[in-house]
Amino acid sequence: MKLLKLIALFLLSVIALKVTAQQKKYVMVIHGGAGTILKKNMTPEKEAAYIAVLTQALQAGYAEIKAGKTSMDAVEATIHVMENDPHFNAGKGAVFTHDGKNELDAAIMDGKTLMAGSVAGVTTIKNPISAARAVMEKSEHVMMVGAGAEQFAKEAGLEIVDPKYFWTQERWDGLQKAIKEDSTKAVLDHGNKKSELLGIKNHDYKFGTVGCVALDKAGNLAAGTSTGGMTNKKYGRVGDAPIIGAGTYCNNETAGISCTGWGEFYIRNVVAKTISDLMEYKGLSVAEASKIALDKVGKMGGDGGLIALDKKGNVAMPFNTEGMYRGTITADGKIEVSIYK
Amino acid sequence: MKLLKLIALFLLSVIALKVTAQQKKYVMVIHGGAGTILKKNMTPEKEAAYIAVLTQALQAGYAEIKAGKTSMDAVEATIHVMENDPHFNAGKGAVFTHDGKNELDAAIMDGKTLMAGSVAGVTTIKNPISAARAVMEKSEHVMMVGAGAEQFAKEAGLEIVDPKYFWTQERWDGLQKAIKEDSTKAVLDHGNKKSELLGIKNHDYKFGTVGCVALDKAGNLAAGTSTGGMTNKKYGRVGDAPIIGAGTYCNNETAGISCTGWGEFYIRNVVAKTISDLMEYKGLSVAEASKIALDKVGKMGGDGGLIALDKKGNVAMPFNTEGMYRGTITADGKIEVSIYK
Repeated sequence: MKLLKLIALFLLSVIALKVTAQQKKYVMVIHGGAGTILKKNMTPEKEAAYIAVLTQALQAGYAEIKAGKTSMDAVEATIHVMENDPHFNAGKGAVFTHDGKNELDAAIMDGKTLMAGSVAGVTTIKNPISAARAVMEKSEHVMMVGAGAEQFAKEAGLEIVDPKYFWTQERWDGLQKAIKEDSTKAVLDHGNKKSELLGIKNHDYKFGTVGCVALDKAGNLAAGTSTGGMTNKKYGRVGDAPIIGAGTYCNNETAGISCTGWGEFYIRNVVAKTISDLMEYKGLSVAEASKIALDKVGKMGGDGGLIALDKKGNVAMPFNTEGMYRGTITADGKIEVSIYK
Repeated sequence: MKLLKLIALFLLSVIALKVTAQQKKYVMVIHGGAGTILKKNMTPEKEAAYIAVLTQALQAGYAEIKAGKTSMDAVEATIHVMENDPHFNAGKGAVFTHDGKNELDAAIMDGKTLMAGSVAGVTTIKNPISAARAVMEKSEHVMMVGAGAEQFAKEAGLEIVDPKYFWTQERWDGLQKAIKEDSTKAVLDHGNKKSELLGIKNHDYKFGTVGCVALDKAGNLAAGTSTGGMTNKKYGRVGDAPIIGAGTYCNNETAGISCTGWGEFYIRNVVAKTISDLMEYKGLSVAEASKIALDKVGKMGGDGGLIALDKKGNVAMPFNTEGMYRGTITADGKIEVSIYK
């Protein structure tokens, strides 16, 4: 009798463990940018708005996965929600360049085929993530920039908007503030050729990107990133988001990755591919690999964060800033959204 | 007596081995593009011209190294020679886009600091490799594209030329041929949305890039790549050359790498960083790592080649095309130049 009890107990434990494991299987992870995001600077209304959009974005992608669509579809649907919302520095909420323009970048990658697409410096495409997908699916190319990319998007039938669509009061005010701060810096840094040429020395408005990694029912991963770049950016600067291997990478054999942060450090460290290679060549977990790659950025003086999801549904969301807008959804639909450390 | 003889013989062998090892220490490796380069299609004059420029390029970089300058100086000096010569698809010999323009890309990376710079889609900068270096040294950015990059180069004091400077009869004829072939293909591919949108289906003129990796007396590596891109390219396409991690990467701990070939496959495989990671995380030699990375490109249907040089002076120059313009110089100044398999 005692033995039977023990066996029953054992079987129950196995079932319980299995349920826990299933609940812990993540099918999507998103970010809405990392940076100096502190609770003391946030109003309850603003915080609630961020949480609402992050939740809505996760639900949009999850609906695709539940309907049996691909991880590419889920990534695109999720990022559309964030691109169409003015809270994030992507699509509608994109920051302004020094010349008062909104220049958008995006990339997407399919973990099954290693096909990828990206656009940079586009000003008329409502949803840059869809343009990146069109480059991947409807051209032989991976990357297109500027007016050429816009022409391609138009011919591919994507929604084209007047550049004014991207104008928002908050981002415009952000540019004026940045220009003022940079001029002050330029005077202080007088004689420093580097800052003279660059005109950008401040740090806090380097951030803001949205990204998503999804795992569909067929076991395929996809990753995407979309951004408005850096406030007050000059000289046609391109960050890490549209660079395959730096800000975006995806491989079914390892993980899907989307980064956010001080782009230059992510490019120099080829962060996303480094995570994949640490998993493939050193056998590390997605969490271990993500930590090592982000530490490389930190050691150089860069900051930001990243999201990563492997084929088994393990997730990593490290960041070395004060906060990162982020969220996950598990196979059974459970959503978790966070902002601060 | 017999023992003394044996000892003498042993000592001589050791010295001989050491000399051989020294002679085998490469300090520079260059490429001038990979592709369908067959001896039967080459005139003796043309072949001699290629060999002469490759030799001159190696000598230019070697002079810098011998004078105790940095590997960055050597890479820049070497690539200048190839950019200023019309035989290579970089600088003066750049191919034409569909719209009859010459849009140039370049990247450079310092293996000691992991600093990097790149430009893409520039039309007025005489030596794009120097613009890439200026982005690295005189800005906080890594990548700049289009008119913004040109403005930056001008402000940085680089030589600006009329876009007509890049016009050459041979490349112009190449564009006309490509347009004609593509129109024929477009008719043949009628109904194929992909080729309709793209207008580029032919393959042989995808190639042509120049690159260099150098190792200076202080033991520091640098790598650079410069290209005119793809004949008849449209939509602001950017290839792998200016993408850090794809066509160009350098790290003193592993190797400096510069790639040439069908750029899209090099981006999707993040080829240059993969080689570095295979060395760092799997302990492979530069030759083994380079072979594996190029095989990944080949398996996907891509082709091209690459050059790599590690901190000990070991070199790799694999390619899966008919030929690759390439050359090496050892620490003692011995030059080797090759074109075919």
